[in-house]
Amino acid sequence: MNWPKHGANPKYLFNALEEPFPDKTIDFSANINPLGPLPVIKKNWQSLFEEISVYPDPAGLNLKQKLSNETGLDTQEILLGNGGAEIISLVGRFLADKRVLIVQPAFSEYEQACKANNCNIDYHQVIAGSWDLNIEVLEKKLKNTDAVFFCNPNNPTGLYYPNAVVKELLLACKKQNCLLIIDEAFYDFVYYYESITKYILEFPNLLIIRSMTKMFAIPGLRLGYVLGDSKIIKCLARFQPEWSVNAIALKVGEWCLDSENYRKETLHLIMSEKKRLFAFFHHLQFKVSPSETNFYLVKDPTLDNQFPMFQFLIKRGIIPRHTMNFPGLEGKWLRFAVKSPSENNQLMEAIQQWKSDCHLYL
Amino acid sequence: MNWPKHGANPKYLFNALEEPFPDKTIDFSANINPLGPLPVIKKNWQSLFEEISVYPDPAGLNLKQKLSNETGLDTQEILLGNGGAEIISLVGRFLADKRVLIVQPAFSEYEQACKANNCNIDYHQVIAGSWDLNIEVLEKKLKNTDAVFFCNPNNPTGLYYPNAVVKELLLACKKQNCLLIIDEAFYDFVYYYESITKYILEFPNLLIIRSMTKMFAIPGLRLGYVLGDSKIIKCLARFQPEWSVNAIALKVGEWCLDSENYRKETLHLIMSEKKRLFAFFHHLQFKVSPSETNFYLVKDPTLDNQFPMFQFLIKRGIIPRHTMNFPGLEGKWLRFAVKSPSENNQLMEAIQQWKSDCHLYL
Repeated sequence: MNWPKHGANPKYLFNALEEPFPDKTIDFSANINPLGPLPVIKKNWQSLFEEISVYPDPAGLNLKQKLSNETGLDTQEILLGNGGAEIISLVGRFLADKRVLIVQPAFSEYEQACKANNCNIDYHQVIAGSWDLNIEVLEKKLKNTDAVFFCNPNNPTGLYYPNAVVKELLLACKKQNCLLIIDEAFYDFVYYYESITKYILEFPNLLIIRSMTKMFAIPGLRLGYVLGDSKIIKCLARFQPEWSVNAIALKVGEWCLDSENYRKETLHLIMSEKKRLFAFFHHLQFKVSPSETNFYLVKDPTLDNQFPMFQFLIKRGIIPRHTMNFPGLEGKWLRFAVKSPSENNQLMEAIQQWKSDCHLYL
Repeated sequence: MNWPKHGANPKYLFNALEEPFPDKTIDFSANINPLGPLPVIKKNWQSLFEEISVYPDPAGLNLKQKLSNETGLDTQEILLGNGGAEIISLVGRFLADKRVLIVQPAFSEYEQACKANNCNIDYHQVIAGSWDLNIEVLEKKLKNTDAVFFCNPNNPTGLYYPNAVVKELLLACKKQNCLLIIDEAFYDFVYYYESITKYILEFPNLLIIRSMTKMFAIPGLRLGYVLGDSKIIKCLARFQPEWSVNAIALKVGEWCLDSENYRKETLHLIMSEKKRLFAFFHHLQFKVSPSETNFYLVKDPTLDNQFPMFQFLIKRGIIPRHTMNFPGLEGKWLRFAVKSPSENNQLMEAIQQWKSDCHLYL
């Protein structure tokens, strides 16, 4: 069957599975803040209507200024994008025909963008289960590499590599004249996150890609950005279409950055829900990836391929993210977003049911 | 001075001119439907809030189906874009390192996208004033050309080349294995427009780029599309970021296509306003480009460079589009959008004032 490339848009998944779309579904395949969009957006939604009939500011200066204040970087070191996906696409264009190393498993758009731009792609595989980055082997590959894609925290595993690891990788990359692209799409869900934006000043070979659609639950609007040395930022901007970030996203993005409390509340919620979920899975003796962000991998150890459990859940409207297109996982794990307490309860009930039903046959 | 690349976003223009931004302005530099967005969008705006927290359909199937019905083409022959500008950028990427011919003057993004992708660019110049396409000379250049950018109706002149010309150009391009890219961003403002979508089936070397932001007055949302042979559409799609068209644009786009009356009303308004405007300019013995769309070029024949008139208008909050970056025009003409009757009246009053003030010194 033709598995969808990404989570979210579950109708495509049900079509591919030739399963009827259930009346009620909970989508655990999209890693979106369970608190939903900020109340200020809903409150001021009507005022945004005025934005649609004028061209967006092509430079997005107001939002960029706010990001500059937040990151401590200059506006010249920031480029806004039509979602993190556009930034990845621009970076892929920038790397056309180059030798690229992708640390796997990872968000599949890196490979997609590199293939579209005829890059010579090599992979460094993190082994599922041990989750060891194996940094010595990785560093040996840098000699023949122009750029590395490194997702931190990693999507789909949720693993977060602390600054010591990032710094070591940065130094090794610098030594080999290699660009290090760190995708931090989910950085703001990491409770003990340490900022790496300061490294931009020290390392002109560092690009940090970020998304604003996950933390702020606005994937429908598309908003992301990239931080890096102003020279590379300028190169990336050359490939970007004019007015690429729409006017609604620009305005909402500004509101989002004024939301310290909401972000803190989210971090606490994710942390406490993960504790409950992980305790539950451990109690069942399921394997769980040691995620430090808002999603995690799960494996029923009695199964190699998790398809039977996947199908069991799907029929009940519980939608996991399949891992068929994540190298090294290939269906042997399922990914779940950390959602609201009641939604997580429904997931645990369904898994409990799956486990009980299984036992009938074991 | 550093002239802005495009119309709209007039604050950048006033900054460049070091002029204070007036309290009241009328922006004639953005060619947007003066009727404004469809009433149905405002009426249902609140319902769109639900769209922001889910990922947009990456294929935009519902909107694509509606466009398929409207154009008579298959959904495989349509690609949606984050504004016409993204489509131009994708086409530029597709043409990387190729020999491209741009019929000038034209929207500057073709050149920008081709330069970013290292194309070998040649130009075919339409002479301002005579506005002759000089098709024989153009056709001679096709032998050494992989692709031609042709804007019809032309931006900035407003000239519309009928199907006979398009067909001749298509045949000449086909003979030389040359891709013809027709930018129809303003086609739906042409009263006597004849559709060229049928040529897609006959000519696999034809791409038609369209925008939905001008007719439907939604430039803040970003929405465009390209029509062409399914093979080229597939190639373009490979370069496009995932989820490139935001969820609000997708939904609003569907509503827009159900608006036959609004489109007719717009055509009538533009036609009758243009009659009034052109009569006025002719009476003043100003030169006007024979535009068949919703903007036109104007020249006070007593001036070579129009900057004095430009500055006179700007100070009164009337914002023309400068033509400094349109080859062959370079400030010797000004472009104006056809706006609402009262706004057009204010333009005519200001021009009358300019003329009277001038006469004091002549």
